[in-house]
Parts: sequence; structure tokens; C-alpha cells
Amino acid sequence: MSVTAAAGFRAAGVAAGVKSSGGADVALVVNDGPIDAAAGVFTANRAKANPVLWSQQALADGTARAVILNSGGANCFTGAFGFQTTHQTAERVAERLGIGAVEVQVCSTGLIGVGDEAFRQAVLRGVDLAVDALGDDEAAGLAAARAIMTTDSVPKQAIDSRGGYTVGGMAKGAGMLAPGLATMLVVLTTDAVADAAMLDRALRAATRVTFDRLDSDGCMSTNDTVLLLASGASGQRASEAELTAAVTAVCDDLARQLQADAEGASHDIAIEVLGAASEDDAVSVGRSVARSNLFKAAIFGNDPNWGRVLAAIGTTDASFDPFEVDVAFNGVRVCHAGEPDRPREEVDLTPRETRIRIDLHAGEHAATIRTNDLTHEYVHENSAYAS
Amino acid sequence: MSVTAAAGFRAAGVAAGVKSSGGADVALVVNDGPIDAAAGVFTANRAKANPVLWSQQALADGTARAVILNSGGANCFTGAFGFQTTHQTAERVAERLGIGAVEVQVCSTGLIGVGDEAFRQAVLRGVDLAVDALGDDEAAGLAAARAIMTTDSVPKQAIDSRGGYTVGGMAKGAGMLAPGLATMLVVLTTDAVADAAMLDRALRAATRVTFDRLDSDGCMSTNDTVLLLASGASGQRASEAELTAAVTAVCDDLARQLQADAEGASHDIAIEVLGAASEDDAVSVGRSVARSNLFKAAIFGNDPNWGRVLAAIGTTDASFDPFEVDVAFNGVRVCHAGEPDRPREEVDLTPRETRIRIDLHAGEHAATIRTNDLTHEYVHENSAYAS
Repeated sequence: MSVTAAAGFRAAGVAAGVKSSGGADVALVVNDGPIDAAAGVFTANRAKANPVLWSQQALADGTARAVILNSGGANCFTGAFGFQTTHQTAERVAERLGIGAVEVQVCSTGLIGVGDEAFRQAVLRGVDLAVDALGDDEAAGLAAARAIMTTDSVPKQAIDSRGGYTVGGMAKGAGMLAPGLATMLVVLTTDAVADAAMLDRALRAATRVTFDRLDSDGCMSTNDTVLLLASGASGQRASEAELTAAVTAVCDDLARQLQADAEGASHDIAIEVLGAASEDDAVSVGRSVARSNLFKAAIFGNDPNWGRVLAAIGTTDASFDPFEVDVAFNGVRVCHAGEPDRPREEVDLTPRETRIRIDLHAGEHAATIRTNDLTHEYVHENSAYAS
Repeated sequence: MSVTAAAGFRAAGVAAGVKSSGGADVALVVNDGPIDAAAGVFTANRAKANPVLWSQQALADGTARAVILNSGGANCFTGAFGFQTTHQTAERVAERLGIGAVEVQVCSTGLIGVGDEAFRQAVLRGVDLAVDALGDDEAAGLAAARAIMTTDSVPKQAIDSRGGYTVGGMAKGAGMLAPGLATMLVVLTTDAVADAAMLDRALRAATRVTFDRLDSDGCMSTNDTVLLLASGASGQRASEAELTAAVTAVCDDLARQLQADAEGASHDIAIEVLGAASEDDAVSVGRSVARSNLFKAAIFGNDPNWGRVLAAIGTTDASFDPFEVDVAFNGVRVCHAGEPDRPREEVDLTPRETRIRIDLHAGEHAATIRTNDLTHEYVHENSAYAS
């Protein structure tokens, strides 16, 4: 169950010929109300794809009635023609649903530079097929989740119910996962009653500690979009704290599914930073490790190379003394106060789940950054993506 | 010819048992004067190895008479015992040469955390062997250059003569190459007459546009050291401009040798950024591309993926409009004004030398950043390094 788990939503996923493979490639999510409050978080990359440029503007009024998504092409760096394609796509959805074009959010994912006439016609055909295929059941939600997959090996869905309402969601993403989001599209739906301002705060609070702390390969995408739509169909007015908790739970679940499906990864790594002087320091230290190719290659080789951890965190400006730091790999403290501690042979890095614990001994704050190892498969998949 | 090319210098390289392989692992460079002016640039990493901590202090007076270097262990994060090892090493050199310990620079390279009693005894044995082996000929310089190799496949030496004096140098490094230097040790010697302040300015000007613009894998080392020693033995007083040019030429030559020998690389990539509003902007844009794993994996796959270039530069805060940028791969402009231009099939990425030209159309400044591609071999070598 995903975007159709909450009452008031219909969805569809269809094959429209955007992908040359013939697979499902256009998804549609429709909010049937009674309310149409919505919030979104978009990529921080200045190189924004056409659908991001459109959707940010269209969401400025805090409402959305539908989300149209395609895989098979990012429609990024495709110029004025590409922006017109996004606009026409929103207009086609609006026309078919009897709503306004600015009530339609548009998301695209795939290769940058893809967005020609054939792409446009395929997406528009997808709109028609998807409207005809809309359903409110589990199968409809799953079809939508499948249609947004690119190099994903599995569809990603999550759900959380509390307080008489539900939050559900779907996500795609399997690489280019980085702070400020990733090459990821996420649509969350809820039947709680909430206004756009509360949705916005809840969504930002949730993404800050979930998607923003997933840094698979340090690369930031041009198309990242996370949307949260409320139908109010449950009639239950949500408290902000409870809604934030529910949205965070769904985002956390989806983020872990993204991590588990990262291209070519053989380890899912949680970098837990403790004893930091501030939460920002903890995040900065964790991210420096998550972005060290030498560290990531060592994990691939099942090597508890704590020297590469310390070399990475030494490049940050966080408040701590590098020579007072403890580092543990999967529970074995291999470095204590900046010197070798337990023998590296005691560390077992064969499980996929990997925990690196870094105690800075500089304060009371903590944060966990999630990443993956650097593998032969990562290189292979990312050198062959366009061909 | 390298560190012994300039008059007034002797060198040696010996096998002392620091490396378990039995290969050469201790090098010594001695300045016989008549002057002993020196300058150094050290890693910007806060996690500094013991020899870096020693050498920075010992060089504070602008003089050095000898440099002792070892491969086979970084003596980093080895605590007070490791610092004592560095100190004892300097003292042993000083005793054997009849100079003061603070006139001895110490450099180590190898695995972090390695620096136990056996390491200490091997390095001290190396001092004795090296003093006995000192010579002022080409063979002595080559022996020193070989003794500092770790994963390097070839020794690196360079020379430049002008104005009646010579600048020569040796370098090691084959990975962890990043701004603020790399896992690299470089010793430069000159027989020009120059004071420490001029040497310092010349060295910083040279490293800023050479080693600091080589970003092989984004990782910054704990042991990076670049030293410049002047003997004055030519009797020629150098002009600052000419000396800077000579030192820059030698650094540039060595930097290209480091790039060409980067672990597992199959492409040497020059990222030329033009039309920037400032030189800092050009460097920042070039570096963002050099650090994109997705871009680097694409080059490995001979894929002119300009979308990944634009996605990378969009993460910087340099002054330019992402939608006005041109990108060319090996002379073929595949992106013009933020849209597809020539077909990617026209680009030939099979040569090892790869040129990416990015025109920001935002000003008159330029800079070139050098990097390598991300390959299966990189992952393999860096996952197996410690084992």
C-alpha cells in the first residue's frame, strides 16, 4: 500500500512508450478531496529540471490536486521546448480531470538532455492512458510506484496510520542520492485534515532527518522532488506533532528502502556520530565520512580502515580534537583516543548492515548519516547508464 | 635526475625493513650548503601525522639541513609513542650528520595506525644505512625517489634549469590526491641563493596552481608534505619571478606524473573552466566536476555525459547561469547554452588524455583542475590496500 492507502486518492501506472524498453513509465496520483492542501521540497541544485521549475511555481499557493510523473527522461537541460512539454503535460492532466493546470505537479526522472518531440508525445499519451486507469485500491498504488522506477530493482512503498488517519507514500531512487535530496521522486498522501503551512513544516522536519541524511554517492540531482498531499477524507484534524511523526516514519521507511536499493552497493552503512558539540557538527562529520571514496572502497573490501575515517573527519571544521576520537566498526572499538585499540581482525564486516560509531568526545549531540559502499558494480552501472 | 640535480645535495634510498616486502623504504636528502634556507607546505587536514606535527615546528625558523623519509607506515594516529619515534628519527639523523635535530625534516607515508616498536627500529636502522649510502649523483637521487614509493608504479622526478641554477624534485603519490595536497611527499632542491621568505612565496605560488588543482579522488591525506631546500651552491642569486617559474615548472611536471599514476585510473582528465567571474569560481566549478563519482564513472565508460557535468556545477555557488553554459568533451561541444548540441556519438573518449571544456559565459577568468576517472581498478586497489 502506498499513495492509495489514505482515503481520497486514486492512482495509476501505465506504459506509454517513454522508455524504449516498453516498461511502465507514466504514473498519476489524484487527490479527490475534500481538501487540496499540499507541500513540497525540491532539489537545492541550481541546475533544476523543467518539471521542478514548473512544480515549484505551481505549488506556491499551497494546493495541488494531481501529480503526474514519468520515468525514461529527466526533461532537464532541454530548453524552452522542454518547459513547454511540462506545461502541456500539466494542461492535459487538468483538461482530463476538469481542474486547473496550476493544480498539477509534474515530476520527471531519467537521463538529462532527454526531452524531444517523441518524449513529449509519449508523456501526453501516458496522461490519457493513466486517467483511464485510475483506481483507489492497492493495485493502483503499486502500479504507480512501479511506473516511476528507473534503475530501481524494486518499487518502494510505505505507510503509517495513527490518530484516525493514514500517511502513505511511494519513492523511486537508486543512485545520485545526496543531501538536499537525491535523484529521487517521492509522493506522500494523507487523508488527515491539515493546512498547507502545517504540511510544509511537517514535511521539512521529516526530510531533514531522513532523505537529507542519506548520502549514497555525494551527487545531487536536478530533478529531486518530495510532495505531500492532504485530502482530508478521514475528517480527522491532525496535530502537528503527530502528523510530523507519521510523515517522518514514512520518509524514514522509504529512505531505508532507497539505501537498500542503491546502485551496486554491497553494504548499507549507518555512520553514527556521537559526542558532537552540535547537531550540525555531527551531520558534517558523518557526511565527510560518507563522501570518502577511500572509506567506501575499504568497506566494500570488508576492511575496518579507521584511518580513513579519521582522515575524512579531519577535513571538517567541526569542533573536536581528532586525537580524542573513538571509532567502532560493528561494535568493535578499533580506535580509542586517536590510537589503535582492538585488533582489526575482531571486526566482522561481512553482513550487509554496517554500523560505524564515531564518538567525538566534544559534546552531547548526535546524528546518523546513511550511505553505501563503493563497489565494482557501482562503477559498472554508472559507466553504462547512458548506453 | 631529481633531488641531486642541484649542486650541494646528497641523497640515498635504502631497504631497512619498514616494508614487509623488503623493498626500499627509507630515503635521505642532505643539504651541504653553503646556505640552509627552506620552506614547506603541509596538509590542511586537522588529522596530521606525527612527522607533519614535527616538521611544521622544526621548519618555523626557515632552515633545514636534511630530510628523512620513509614509506611502509604513516606514523599517524600512533599517539605519544609515534611522536617519540619521529623525534628519535630526527635525532639519529642529526647525530650521524653532526647537525641539530630541528634541522631535520621528517616525512612518512603508508598505512595510518602503523608505528609500533618494530616500525621505529626499522626506520632508525634505515637512518644508519642511508647515511652510509649518501651520494650526489643521479643514481643516488633515483634511489631516494624509489624508496618513498608506496602504491606508485614508477618513481617520479623532475628538473628545471635556468638563470645559472637548477631546481630538481622527487614525488610519491598515487591516490588520495586532493586539494590542500594529497597523500604525497615532495622534496624539491635548488642550488640558487634565496632566503626562506622568498622560497616560501615561490613554493606557495607553485603549489597553488599545480598540486592544489590535482583532485584525484577528493580525499585529503594526513601526511602530505612539500619541501623546498636551497643550498646556494651555484652562487647565483635567484629573482623571485624566475625562481617561482622554475619551481612551478617542476611542480607541474611532478603533478602530471602523479595524475598519470593515480591508482587504477584509465583516463587523465583536464577540466578547463573558462568564462568565470573569478579564478576562485573557476576552481570551485572545476572541483565540483572532479568530485562527481557519476561523472567519473561515465568517463570510465567513454560516455560524454554532459548532464552529469551540469548537475555537478549546479551544486556550487559560483556566479553563472546554468542555462547559459557550454560543455565540450575532447573538442566536441555537446551542450550549448544549456541544451543538447552536437551528437554524443561524435565524441571519442578512447584516448587516456581527456579534455572537458566548460564555458560559463560569466566573465574572463579561467582555471584547470586535473582528475582521473572512477574505475573497477580504483575500487579494487582501495578495497585491498590494507590487506
